[in-house]
Amino acid sequence: MTATCQRVVLASRPTGPVTPDNFRLETVPVPEPADGQVLVRVHYLSLDPYMRSRMMDMRSYAEPQKLGETMIGGTVGIVEQSRNPRFAAGDTVVGPLGWTEYGLSDGRGLMKVDTRAIPMSAYLGSVGMPGVTAWYGINRICEPKPGETVLVSAASGAVGSVVGQLAKLAGCRALGIAGGREKCEYVTAGLGFDACIDHRQHTDPRSMARAIRAAAPNGVDCVFENVGGVCLDGAIANMNPFGRIALCGLIAGYNGEDIPIHNVRNLLVMRLRMQGFIVSEHLDVWPQALQELAAGVASGRIKYRETVAEGLAAAPEAFIGMLAGKNFGKQLVKLV
Amino acid sequence: MTATCQRVVLASRPTGPVTPDNFRLETVPVPEPADGQVLVRVHYLSLDPYMRSRMMDMRSYAEPQKLGETMIGGTVGIVEQSRNPRFAAGDTVVGPLGWTEYGLSDGRGLMKVDTRAIPMSAYLGSVGMPGVTAWYGINRICEPKPGETVLVSAASGAVGSVVGQLAKLAGCRALGIAGGREKCEYVTAGLGFDACIDHRQHTDPRSMARAIRAAAPNGVDCVFENVGGVCLDGAIANMNPFGRIALCGLIAGYNGEDIPIHNVRNLLVMRLRMQGFIVSEHLDVWPQALQELAAGVASGRIKYRETVAEGLAAAPEAFIGMLAGKNFGKQLVKLV
Repeated sequence: MTATCQRVVLASRPTGPVTPDNFRLETVPVPEPADGQVLVRVHYLSLDPYMRSRMMDMRSYAEPQKLGETMIGGTVGIVEQSRNPRFAAGDTVVGPLGWTEYGLSDGRGLMKVDTRAIPMSAYLGSVGMPGVTAWYGINRICEPKPGETVLVSAASGAVGSVVGQLAKLAGCRALGIAGGREKCEYVTAGLGFDACIDHRQHTDPRSMARAIRAAAPNGVDCVFENVGGVCLDGAIANMNPFGRIALCGLIAGYNGEDIPIHNVRNLLVMRLRMQGFIVSEHLDVWPQALQELAAGVASGRIKYRETVAEGLAAAPEAFIGMLAGKNFGKQLVKLV
Repeated sequence: MTATCQRVVLASRPTGPVTPDNFRLETVPVPEPADGQVLVRVHYLSLDPYMRSRMMDMRSYAEPQKLGETMIGGTVGIVEQSRNPRFAAGDTVVGPLGWTEYGLSDGRGLMKVDTRAIPMSAYLGSVGMPGVTAWYGINRICEPKPGETVLVSAASGAVGSVVGQLAKLAGCRALGIAGGREKCEYVTAGLGFDACIDHRQHTDPRSMARAIRAAAPNGVDCVFENVGGVCLDGAIANMNPFGRIALCGLIAGYNGEDIPIHNVRNLLVMRLRMQGFIVSEHLDVWPQALQELAAGVASGRIKYRETVAEGLAAAPEAFIGMLAGKNFGKQLVKLV
């Protein structure tokens, strides 16, 4: 009898909001590692907003997710069998194995991690891709000087929470935007941001701009944008001369909504610089970033929060919930 | 009897499009230079889009033009009396003397120019502020590599014409956007651009995007934006990864029109960099830029065209016409 496991494949592409029908849970044989490969039992699957874009068949920086194939995704797990000299059974590894209980890897993109001082799951969050995303945007695009004000949207999330804490560690004023009072309280009291704006109270750019002005009377120098739309337009209205905008995500527009920037004039008048980036294209910074983030998490200077769904079958609903902001901190799926 | 001269002051701020009533022609005594000052007879007044913003009382990079005072503006003229050792009567000088027949200067911002190989008026255009604006945007923001495609809006204008010619001299493909068939023919046949799109034929972003795609099948690497709105949105839709946008002007929005960027997604997905700039803040580049531009104009490698209104009383109508794109090349007012 062959052992089996579960995986989730893309069944269809969304035409509007993502629905559970876009995914299909399948039972497949546990794969056998060939020479050079390792078999990993996945303990945690990471759910991230970028997956939404991959579900579409459109021109982008990456190939679209193929229909009928295992959904892409970052995972952390433990090597169960190894036919690769770089890994041994029992190693904890991070890698892009996707929405599956067992994954094969030839070792490319697979990294051993140390779980003595840092929990396994953090390697999918603050000490993983989301953390490096925050690190890159802050250190390579925003480059805030001490005393400057840094604004980040989706501030309680996996990326945003690190952005604000890095800004504070850099001697800046950190201002967040998050959805709901509970998240805002966590952003300030839990993460140490100076202020947080509840975007549910400010659904048009003018109202958001006024709220940001009240929270940042000296203006905003850096914006780390994860959302777009009202957040971004409201932020641009408050930016100081020579401000920098790291454009990281546009979750407000993931279902095809029009999320225009109306305040283009301020981009010119305030001589702003706005730059889009994809963290996977900057592998050169990963070692330094991961080292700094690991030190921050291990020492408690960088805090984080997780929302954990149980079992692979729960992944589609957890993903849909995350796109709607129902998660609180890093969204994970626990498989073991 | 005191000699008199004419000047134009700002009579009122526009609430929508600029009207002749916003200006007032006044007759005033010819000023007397104090110790350290020079009296300049203005030969040409430069009319530039930035003046439109100064007419408004809004937060910007510069103080608003004051009501009842001489309209600001770049001029070229001849020193009539000098009580400043750096200048002598008969010197040809460029400086910000404003909409006036005679201006006083203490020498700050006043520069002697050589008219042996270059006509006086060119120091207000290709070898002046507009030329340096083009030079800065190309060399410091766009940084195009040979073989790349550079797109510029208002391509037949004082800035745009230099942008495209500098792009060609850098080994790039130059693509222009201009208003009307006649201007487009000049941009290609006269200035040597590879192609030009008539924006009057493409009044929505999709149509503009298709036209740009047809003219730039390999995509656009650099955009030098003078207009905004449909031009910019159409350009962003065609940009290649890591493209650069120099945001120089937004003439489409000068009357308060909403000129949103709808295609924010491409800024992220294509990892674009957009940067606003004001050439007067980069005085360090002026000497090198002016030297290169002067060499280009003197040798005929950089061509330009002028629209010249006659007499100071014609300045308001000429300015209003320029904002509507009625000028063809650099808009000047000839006073002598």
